[in-house]
Order: sequence, then C-alpha cells, then structure tokens
Amino acid sequence: MIRREITDGTFPFRDEFEDIHMNIEQRLRELVGETGGKLHTGRSRNDQVALDLRLYCLGAASGWQKSIWRLVGLIAERAEEFKTNLFPAWTHMQAAQPMSWGHYFLSLAEMLARDEARLSSFQLLHSVSPLGAGALSGSSLPLAPEVTAEILGFSGSFGNSYDVVGDRDALLELSQIAVQLMIHLSRWAEDFIYMASTPVGWIDLPDSLCTGSSMMPQKKNPDLLELTRGKTASVIGHCTGLMTLLKGLPTSYQRDLQQDKEHLFSIVDTVTDSLEVQTLLWAGLDVKVEKAQAALDNGFLMATELAEYLVAKGVPFRAAHHQVGSLVKQCIDQDRTLSDMSLDEFRILFPLVDEEVLEVVRPEGALLRRTHKGSTGIRSIELQLKNWQSWLDQRGE
Amino acid sequence: MIRREITDGTFPFRDEFEDIHMNIEQRLRELVGETGGKLHTGRSRNDQVALDLRLYCLGAASGWQKSIWRLVGLIAERAEEFKTNLFPAWTHMQAAQPMSWGHYFLSLAEMLARDEARLSSFQLLHSVSPLGAGALSGSSLPLAPEVTAEILGFSGSFGNSYDVVGDRDALLELSQIAVQLMIHLSRWAEDFIYMASTPVGWIDLPDSLCTGSSMMPQKKNPDLLELTRGKTASVIGHCTGLMTLLKGLPTSYQRDLQQDKEHLFSIVDTVTDSLEVQTLLWAGLDVKVEKAQAALDNGFLMATELAEYLVAKGVPFRAAHHQVGSLVKQCIDQDRTLSDMSLDEFRILFPLVDEEVLEVVRPEGALLRRTHKGSTGIRSIELQLKNWQSWLDQRGE
Amino acid sequence: MIRREITDGTFPFRDEFEDIHMNIEQRLRELVGETGGKLHTGRSRNDQVALDLRLYCLGAASGWQKSIWRLVGLIAERAEEFKTNLFPAWTHMQAAQPMSWGHYFLSLAEMLARDEARLSSFQLLHSVSPLGAGALSGSSLPLAPEVTAEILGFSGSFGNSYDVVGDRDALLELSQIAVQLMIHLSRWAEDFIYMASTPVGWIDLPDSLCTGSSMMPQKKNPDLLELTRGKTASVIGHCTGLMTLLKGLPTSYQRDLQQDKEHLFSIVDTVTDSLEVQTLLWAGLDVKVEKAQAALDNGFLMATELAEYLVAKGVPFRAAHHQVGSLVKQCIDQDRTLSDMSLDEFRILFPLVDEEVLEVVRPEGALLRRTHKGSTGIRSIELQLKNWQSWLDQRGE
Amino acid sequence: MIRREITDGTFPFRDEFEDIHMNIEQRLRELVGETGGKLHTGRSRNDQVALDLRLYCLGAASGWQKSIWRLVGLIAERAEEFKTNLFPAWTHMQAAQPMSWGHYFLSLAEMLARDEARLSSFQLLHSVSPLGAGALSGSSLPLAPEVTAEILGFSGSFGNSYDVVGDRDALLELSQIAVQLMIHLSRWAEDFIYMASTPVGWIDLPDSLCTGSSMMPQKKNPDLLELTRGKTASVIGHCTGLMTLLKGLPTSYQRDLQQDKEHLFSIVDTVTDSLEVQTLLWAGLDVKVEKAQAALDNGFLMATELAEYLVAKGVPFRAAHHQVGSLVKQCIDQDRTLSDMSLDEFRILFPLVDEEVLEVVRPEGALLRRTHKGSTGIRSIELQLKNWQSWLDQRGE
Repeated sequence: MIRREITDGTFPFRDEFEDIHMNIEQRLRELVGETGGKLHTGRSRNDQVALDLRLYCLGAASGWQKSIWRLVGLIAERAEEFKTNLFPAWTHMQAAQPMSWGHYFLSLAEMLARDEARLSSFQLLHSVSPLGAGALSGSSLPLAPEVTAEILGFSGSFGNSYDVVGDRDALLELSQIAVQLMIHLSRWAEDFIYMASTPVGWIDLPDSLCTGSSMMPQKKNPDLLELTRGKTASVIGHCTGLMTLLKGLPTSYQRDLQQDKEHLFSIVDTVTDSLEVQTLLWAGLDVKVEKAQAALDNGFLMATELAEYLVAKGVPFRAAHHQVGSLVKQCIDQDRTLSDMSLDEFRILFPLVDEEVLEVVRPEGALLRRTHKGSTGIRSIELQLKNWQSWLDQRGE
Repeated sequence: MIRREITDGTFPFRDEFEDIHMNIEQRLRELVGETGGKLHTGRSRNDQVALDLRLYCLGAASGWQKSIWRLVGLIAERAEEFKTNLFPAWTHMQAAQPMSWGHYFLSLAEMLARDEARLSSFQLLHSVSPLGAGALSGSSLPLAPEVTAEILGFSGSFGNSYDVVGDRDALLELSQIAVQLMIHLSRWAEDFIYMASTPVGWIDLPDSLCTGSSMMPQKKNPDLLELTRGKTASVIGHCTGLMTLLKGLPTSYQRDLQQDKEHLFSIVDTVTDSLEVQTLLWAGLDVKVEKAQAALDNGFLMATELAEYLVAKGVPFRAAHHQVGSLVKQCIDQDRTLSDMSLDEFRILFPLVDEEVLEVVRPEGALLRRTHKGSTGIRSIELQLKNWQSWLDQRGE
Repeated sequence: MIRREITDGTFPFRDEFEDIHMNIEQRLRELVGETGGKLHTGRSRNDQVALDLRLYCLGAASGWQKSIWRLVGLIAERAEEFKTNLFPAWTHMQAAQPMSWGHYFLSLAEMLARDEARLSSFQLLHSVSPLGAGALSGSSLPLAPEVTAEILGFSGSFGNSYDVVGDRDALLELSQIAVQLMIHLSRWAEDFIYMASTPVGWIDLPDSLCTGSSMMPQKKNPDLLELTRGKTASVIGHCTGLMTLLKGLPTSYQRDLQQDKEHLFSIVDTVTDSLEVQTLLWAGLDVKVEKAQAALDNGFLMATELAEYLVAKGVPFRAAHHQVGSLVKQCIDQDRTLSDMSLDEFRILFPLVDEEVLEVVRPEGALLRRTHKGSTGIRSIELQLKNWQSWLDQRGE
Repeated sequence: MIRREITDGTFPFRDEFEDIHMNIEQRLRELVGETGGKLHTGRSRNDQVALDLRLYCLGAASGWQKSIWRLVGLIAERAEEFKTNLFPAWTHMQAAQPMSWGHYFLSLAEMLARDEARLSSFQLLHSVSPLGAGALSGSSLPLAPEVTAEILGFSGSFGNSYDVVGDRDALLELSQIAVQLMIHLSRWAEDFIYMASTPVGWIDLPDSLCTGSSMMPQKKNPDLLELTRGKTASVIGHCTGLMTLLKGLPTSYQRDLQQDKEHLFSIVDTVTDSLEVQTLLWAGLDVKVEKAQAALDNGFLMATELAEYLVAKGVPFRAAHHQVGSLVKQCIDQDRTLSDMSLDEFRILFPLVDEEVLEVVRPEGALLRRTHKGSTGIRSIELQLKNWQSWLDQRGE
C-alpha cells in the first residue's frame, strides 16, 4: 500500500521526518500502530544506503547490456548491407589501405562486446547483499543476512560488516566501465563527424541526429554525435570526481560519500541516453558508396598488397618492401598510379609476376585476397557475421 | 642467440636502424644472411606493438595477483593474533561502536579479494593475440593467426583486425583496476596514519616504513604510508591521462597512442612497489592493545547494543532507541557512563531487564553477543578466518 | 517590460520558439510589431552565448571575492582571540613544534588572499566583449563592437572574431581557481575533522555544521566539513570534465561545448555554497584551549628551540643538533621530559648555558623567542593582524 | 668551488649522507673545517624545498613567455603572408563562412597572448621567498627573511611560516596554466591534422614534423602534431594527479607532497618541448592556397553575407534571413549556387538590390565588406597585425 502511495504520488512526505526511511516508518505506524516502530529493527541507514546503491548499479548494468545486444544486432545488419563496399581506412588520418565498410562496422561491435563482458563480470562480483551489517559491526539481534540476501535475489550476503558499509567499489567499477563504453562511442563519433564533414562526405547522418540552419539548409550539423563526444568528457570528469572522492577517505562511512550520488546518477543517465542515440544512428546511417570508393584512387593504397604478392612469389619481405617503395616513387614522379601500370612494365621490375598482378593492385583485391580469420576479406567478414549471430542467439536476441 | 645477446647486454643496438624491430632484423641478417629479411613477413609494427602491450599487461595482472595472495595470508595471520582485542571503530571520525582488530583487518582483505577477482576477469577477457592483424586489415599472405596465438599461450586470436590494432582497452582496464586497488591501500593508509598520529597512538608502525629525526627520536614519520597515499593520487592522474588520451581519438592507430606507455609503465611500477610496501607493513605492524582498549571508555559506544537488547526483550525498536537516548543524556549530565549504572538503576527505566544488562553494556559484549555471519562477533571472525584459508588453499598459497 | 515579465514569471515561454533568444524576439514582435524582427541584426547565437558565459563568470568571480573578504575578517577576529594559545603543530601528523592558534588561523587567510588575487587577474584578463563577432567572422554590417563593449561595462571588445566565439578560457580559468580555492578549504576541513575527532578533541565545531545521533548524543558528526571535502573532489571532477572536453576539440564552435555548462554551473554553485558554510564555521568554531595545551607535553617539541639556543651561544648548528638529540634520547630512557631537567643537569651537557635555558624548553618560549616577520612569535602575529586590517581596509570591508 | 664540482661532475656524492643538502654540508666541512657545520643554521629542509620549487616554477614561467613571444612573431609573419587567401571556416566541422587564413592564424596568437598574461600574473603572485620559515614556525635565531628574499631576487618574504612551508599553490597554478596552453596547441593541432588529412588537403606540414613510410612515400603522418595532442592528455593527467594529491592532505608538510615533483617536472618538460615543436611548425607550414579556395564553392557560404546586405538595404533581419533561406533551397533544387544567379534573378526576389549584389555573393566579399575591428575583413587584419607588432615591441622582441 505504501508502495502504491509513492507510485501514485499520494504519499504524504513530511519534512519533519528526516528522510525517506523515517517517512516510510512513520506512515507504517499510522497504518498499523506501534508495531510499525519495529520496521527499523536490525537496520541502519548505513546498510540500507549500501543496499540501495548496489541494486541501482546492478540494474543499470543489466539495462546497458540489453541496449548493447540491440545495438550489435543493428550494426551487424548494416555491416551485412555494406560488406562489399570499400573506403580508404586510415592511420594518422592518412589513407592507408582499402577496407570493407562491413569490416569497419564489425570492429565497432567488438568494442561493445568487450564492454558487455565487463558488465557480466561486474554483476557476478557485486551480487552481495549488505543488509544486516548495521552501522558497521552487524547486530546483536539474531539476524539471518543470508536469508534477506536470497529474498532480494543476491548471490550471497556480506562477508564482513565493516567492509560492506563503506564499500563503494561497485560504483567506481560501474563508472569505469561507463568510461570505457563512452570512449568507444566517442572514438567512432569522431570517425563519423570526420566522414560527414564537408570536404570528406563519405557518409550521410540521419536527420534525427543533426540540426540545420534555416538560412543554410545544406549545412547539417552532427549535433548528437558531437554531444556523445562531449558527454564522454563529462563521464570522464564524473569518474575522476569519484576516484578523487574515494581516494581522500579513511575506511568506514564518512559523509563525503554523499557526493558519490551526483556523479553516479549523471553517469548512469548519460550512458543510458547515449546508447539510445546510437540506435537512431545505426538505424539511419547511410554510406555514400561512390564518394568513398572514389577516394580509394587518391593514394597508393595497394602498395602493401603488391609487396605481399611478391613475398608470396618468394621475394624476402624486406626486399619486396624496398622494391615496391621505389616503384611508387617512380609513379608519383610520372603522375601515374599503380593501376595505370601494364603487365610488361611490372615485369621489368619484378620478373616473377604474372597477369594476377593487375588484379592485385586493384582495391577489390583487398576483399578477395585476404582470407584469414579476422581480416577485411569477404570470407572473414561472413565468418564474423555468423559469429555475431550466435552471440546474439545466446543472449536470446 | 639474439635473445642471449640482449640479456647479456652485448647486443649491438644501432641508432641508424629506427627501432628495436629493425635492429633485431638487421642482426638476424648479419647472422643468417638474406633469409633474415623474411622476419617481418606478414608483420606490421602496429600488430607487434599491440601484442607487446597485451603481454605486458597480462604479466602485470598475474604478478599483482600473487602479491595479493601473499598479503591476504599476512593479514589473516595478524587478524588471528588480535581477534579478541577491541578498539572504537568510527564513522565520521567519531567513535561509534567497539570492534575487533581482527574483524577490522579482515575487512581490508575483502577489498583485496575483489581486486583479485577483477584481475582474473581481466586476464580472461584480454587473452587475445593481435598477431596477423598487420597495419589494420590483416594480410593477403596465408597467415594462421590462430596458430601463433596458441604458441604464445593466448586463448584465441583476434576477431577483427581493424579493432585489434587500435584497441587499448586492456591498458585502460588494467589502469582502472590499479586505481581501485590503490584507493583501497590509500584508504587504510589514511586509517593507519591517523591511528599512529601523536594524540591517538593505537598502533605502532614498523621502523622500516618510517623516518625519524635525529633530534626528535620519538617523532616517527609514517613516510611510506604517506607515499602510498600520494602515489594513489599519481595513479589516478595517470589513469585520467589515459582516459583523456583515448577519448580524443578516432579509431585505428594514431601516434597519440605512443603517450599511453608513459602512463601505463608508471602505473604498473607504482602498484607493484606499493604491494611490496604492504608486505613490510603487515609483517611489522603492532597494535597498542591497551591504549586502544582504553579509548573505548570515552564514549557511549554500547548504546546500540543496549537498544538491541531491549528489542530482544520485546520493546519496539523505535521506542528502545528513544529510551536509550534519554538514558545516555542523563548519564552525560551526571558525568557517568553506562557501565557505572547498577542493575537497579537500569530497572527503573527498563523494568524488563535482568542481570545480563550489566554484561551488555561492557565492550566485550560486542564480541560475544554478535553471532551472525559477517559481524564483528568472535564466531563470525573465526568463520571468516576459515574462509580465507580455503581461498588461499584454492590458489595454492 | 520583457525583463519584468521574466522576473515576474509571467513571460509566455513557448516551446515552438527554439530557445530563449527566439522567445524574446517573438515577444518583442508581439509588443512592437515587425520592427522586433530587427533585434537579431548583427547578432548570432555564437557571440551571444559567448557573451552570456563571460558575464556569468565575471559575476561569480566578483561574488567570491566579497565572500573571501568577509571570511578573512572573521578569521582575523578568531586569530586575535586565540593568539597566545598554543597547540602542537604537526608535520606527517606527528607533533613537531608548539604553535599559536592565531598564527595557524592566519596561515589559512594567506591561502584565501592568493585566491582573491587570482580572481582579480581573472577579471582583468577576461573583461572583453564578444558581441559583434557573429557566428565566427564578424559582420558586414557597420557594427561598432567597441561601443556595445563599453555599454556592457567591459574593458574592451574582441580582437579576433574567430578566437572569441570558440574561446572558453574564462570558464576553464575560473574552474581552475575554484579548484585551488576548494583545495584550500578541503585541506583545513581535513585539519578540523582530525582536531575534532574523538581521541584528539582540540576543537569544538559549531552545532550548525554537525549532525548528531538521538541515541548517542555525544557523537557530533562534522557533516558540513566532510561535505566541503567531498565537494572539493566533485569540483576537481568537473574541472577534469572541462579540460577533457576542451582538449578533444578543434577550434571554432562545436556542439560538444554545450557540455561546458553542466560543469561550470555545478562548480560555481558549489564554491558559492562552500564559502557560505565557512562563515558558519568561523563564526562558531571553539578551541578547547586546555586540551590542546595539554597535548604539548606529550613530545619533545622544544628540541629545536633548545638547539637554536645553543647555536645562539656559539655552538655550530650540526653539533648543537647532535647534542640535543642525545639528550632527548636520554630523557626518553629515563621517562622524563626536557622541562623536568634542572639547570645543573643542563650544564653538565652544555657548559655555556645559563638560567634562560629553563625558559627555552617551555612551550611558551615559542611565542616569545621567535621575533622575525612571518614566525609564530607574538610580535609577528600582531604585525600580521595589522597587515590584514590594511588589506581589508583597501577593499572597503 | 662546490658549485664548480657539481657542474664538472667531480662532486663526491655519497649515499651515507641522506640527501643533497647533507652532501653539500659535509663537503663544506671537509673544505673549511667545523665552521661548515654552521651552514644549516636557521634552515630546514622544509623551507629549502619550498624555495627550490618556487625558483623552478618561476624560471619555467619566464622561459615559456619567451617562447610565446617568438611564436607570436612567427604566426604574425605567416598571417601577413596569407592574409588575402581564403578557406571555408567551419562550425561543427561543416563549412560555414569564408575566412582569411591570416585572420585564422591570428586567432591562435590571441590564445597564446592570454596564456602569456596568466604567466605574468603568476610571476607577480608567487615571487615570495620561503627562506626562514624553518620546519613550520620560523626560528628563534635572529633571522632576517626580508634580506635573503631580496638577495634571491624575490619581491618579498613570506607572511606566515606555517602557510609557506606547505604551500604548493605555485605548482598547481603553473600546471593549470600549462593545461590551458596545451589545450590551445592541441585544438589547432586537431585543425591541422584535419586540414592535412588525405581527402581534405588544404595545408602541407613541414617534413620535420612528419614520418613517412618507405613503401608509401606519399603518406605523410603528422606525428609531432599527434604527439602534441597526445601530450596534452598527459599534461591534463598530471594536473589531475596534482589536484588529487593536494586535495587529500591536511595543511603543513606531509610526505605525500614528494609526489608533486613527478607531475611538475613532466609538465614543465612537455610544455617546453611542445613550444619548440611549434616553432618548427610555423616556420615550415605551407597553405595549399588553391585547394582551399576551391573548397569555398562547395556550399552556400555567402548566405549570411547576402542576408546582411539585405538588412543594410532596410529589410528586418528576421525577414532577410527567411528570404535568403528560401533562395538557397531553390538553388539546391536547381543544382546551382548563389554566384550562378543573375542580377535580374536576384531582383525578382529582392527588388531593392543593385549590381553590388553580384559582388556580395562572391567569397572575396568577406574580406572587403567586413570592416569593423576584429572581423575577418582585410582592414581588421591589418589592424591586428599592427597591434601584434606593438605587443612584440613592448616585450623587446
């Protein structure tokens, strides 16, 4: 009944009763008489607060996992869709090698899967009920902490009362996982803001993530990705706040700990919202396939491929590396690219090569000639997609 | 042979060969001829650096676990030694309830055990070999990343080449665990510095952790505990450096990542050293049993105990709480303590009580009257000690 | 009139007009007709937001200065009150030398005065109006940014439009000053929590800063000082959030900047409130003069004094240092203190000394024998008090 | 002579003498006999360490100022060189308005000048000698701290001995200024990495800042800018380390403070080096004027300009804004740009306009039509250049 009153908003909160605990006890006394005064028996605000925080953290972790499952499903769909389309993947923001959009998208799923695994370990480690620890030393009443633990769905009850009332490890660990998760989202937000910037233009972001200007309707500002990136900084700030807070304390309960909530709540809300935004992103993201493909011609992205081909023909790696470097330099001087070369020209430099070399220096080669597990080759991508499907099946998605 | 040269210090490092990779390759070519040029086949500095970092992190995690096992063993010994001695445990740095030194010490072991569990999850999650991922897209050579993974002792090989070359999750997670571990050490360093401070004086720190003054030989500065506390701040700083570094990057390899090593190495060394210092601490820590015991008389630490006793006699908690509060106030006005009260005096206020009440208000009651799991009662402490022994046995300590 | 409506709460905010700017413009058009459409002429949300943030920061800085003046006045009063009372000042939380409470209190005023000086430099540096910078490049309309700057009370107008719209230096600098100020408050909160802890008890905190327990009325938890300490961690976290946010951005306006407000507002409110709490603290703080004085006997705090006395008599410092060390050790062995020694006993060790030595080893000597500027001697304290009075007079307090 | 020995490397450091202070004293005693034992008279390691740290910080601040002067000079030169060349300045990484490279470069000088001003305030505030404060309370010897302060070149001596020995404000403030300075460098490093990335290509970075690949010679990785960006994260980390360290301490000297040096030294070295790297950058930076100019055609960057022109003709801003928006939308539908429109076409929409409108929609208009102080107009840029010259002259550069 009290629960119903609180949910309905009809619960008569009164300031003269210090806090939520006392208000509930008082209401119970009004409803059932003096027996209500037994409610707090064997309880202390210290173990109750520890319990509430723990339930809150475990609930958040479980919710985030569900969002990740949904997201991985969406990412896999888009990876399937664009698995044979290419773009110039970079290191140092300099075009390096051709890569499948599908492979790129699935690399982001890998990050989320690690976060999900950490959330599982987190739930296992902190499924411990603090109820019965009292203010710090337990109770002289014949409590059975194991029983309340089971009723509340925990794996077990506390091992040491003094530890458990001052233990804020679950808060810090959850915040740390949140930081890692947000850094993942921020790193690819950075990618997407770059790819959608005016002179690059390889992707088109869903309108729902952007704001425009009524005067410059072509200007599509990637606001929600910028905010994801900005909120990652905030989560890092809140996590630092928590670390600094906990570092400066002796053991046991100190009032400083009240500050942990400001940081925890902000982190939990931010992560929950940011995962929502991702759903919009992945459902509406569009790849400008041709513009990205065209960017592959700008460089000598097939140089590594060519060197590896020579190695397969028996040239020691270091020598192959060196010869390809000379060839590229020569092409630049003559303002040509590797795909402009004829078989005869290749043969002057590399007598061993046959017609295959003309395929090797085409970007599509990257998809076909890479065959091992984990590579950007089409076979590897299809294996990855199959594995993600199993991963989702195991989670009932 | 090259390994031996490096170990011996006779390896001819030369600056003209860019880095460690090229120096080794060059030396190999001197020793075995041009075949040495094959060494880098199917390799890239990107996957090699990712491999080295991962091996380094996994090694550190495993080393810390061993230190924690040793430390838990030591703490359990000292807890056994002082299990029946009491001190006034505090909240808000204000004396609150009597507690067994043994119970207090074992609360610290709980913290370490959580850190150890996180280190185990860490090792499981990141036991993935990056070798074969190349610069970012894998290789067109017929590599078998699964085989090199097995030889190197990993659980498996990478799922996605692009992810694995830019993945620094292991570094960040290890740093986060390090922060948590150091915060634990720092919180009890804070306790011990307080307990050893001039006007408190409940413990005596081992000389090996302190410096003195030749002119004031009685001044024993707890330098190594202060440094542990200070170094916790440094580890937090380094972890923030890493978070900020990773946050500001797009995916893939960017040179900014080179900065991760400054922070990682400092964190790993600090944690390793700080765990060493703990061994000295726990081996040499002395409790000034009588001074701590004497401090129990300063307050009304048995008030909770008395209220719980009344509850056991049938008084509703809230009423018991109220009556004991009045009694304490009355004692203060008369400059007496609870243990100065006679049975008759108690009976005036609480007609239900019998002789037992005189035991209830003595600090030793805390040890005897708390019987449930996890409390500061002697039965609970002995159960805890038994559980720690099993924990250590499982780990072969 | 619009200002009055907003203040009254009668302003008709409507969601269909994007933000506060558009709502005001719309209302103006309702009131004065189409001329209202001119309001935004030569304006952009970018320069307006930059202006508002700057006014907010400058206002906060000026408010904090006034609080500091009030606080320094209070501290000086309490320092005057307790200037001749002593306590054992520590290093490493180990009693080191006798110190006047007045001298100790005034050391805290020094910290605040440095913060106040930084707030002055801050106001000088950032008194620059951004109005007229437009979105980023200024305007082709004949604006006069210097004139609006003057009307708004700034020292001048922006030098470069592109810089000023993305410039968040004022936010970061204010947050950095806030961190320093809060660290000062936190450091002495740490002192006071220690000094008020049960076994130390040298001070009594005002009830308005503490909470008690109805059952243990003697337990006075220093909640507001603990919160000051905890909130310092939060301010550090928010400052780190801001640093990380700004670090990850290119120049110009990016939407990430919206996150700066969460951190800035929290910092400003926290500092303002924490300075309020200090007023309560300093108005109500009580020193338990005798308990603190009694603690001076616990050590050999006059050892330095004695050595300096020997130096004044011509003994080289290193030799004096050594001899006093031996004497102290001998006292400890015999369970005596320096003030138990007779003149004859002193003379056996130090033939040069006269009766004055008996004064030298009494704690009060610290007040009388230290005469130079800045020392804990009474003359120095009186000079400090006079200087603080001038400092306050200059500020019209 | 001792100074010469230390400089020469012939000074006989011996481990048995605790630290640098004792080694010097010992050597002095070897050279001059027992009088050497007077060296430490009226000194303490506490005030000496405080002195050394202060001198180190003040020296670093002064060195950074000189580097900034040099850098501002270089930036002004390059701004002069490219003052009439344009590029599409962005907000949200979306092209927004044409801007002069000169104006853009000078916006970066503004940031440095604010840092320089903070360094000046810093030097004024902390020019205080701690010598004579002893361990914490001053000395009973007749010291004259004012005199040693003057000899050492400080503005004055400490006001309160207890404050000055534990005061680490100078370290924190210098670190905070370093963070701000590095964030400035990082923000424009981010710009330049973007502008030099393969598909953008508006600038060419000096080879001395980049590494290449022997196999892909066209790939020019902007390593030193990436490191500048990465090192900014490190400086933020070190500053957070310092904040967290200081926050967790009571007043006076605690050994934790030893950790401040790890952070301070790393920050000072990083800033000094990063300013060096900037000299290479600005001396060698090249603008690809045509590629940047060409990028101006991609959008409707003159929309704001056109709207402002209409306003000048008497159209209320909001109406002008609306009409231009419609026109741009119409152009997009017809696949035309504003500069493709004829005067007659403009007149249909905006009857008031004359031939000037054809100039207004050309990018060069931005330079000519913006005339007020601080804008990107050529008159404003020339005024800025003149002001920077005065700024440099005042500093003797």
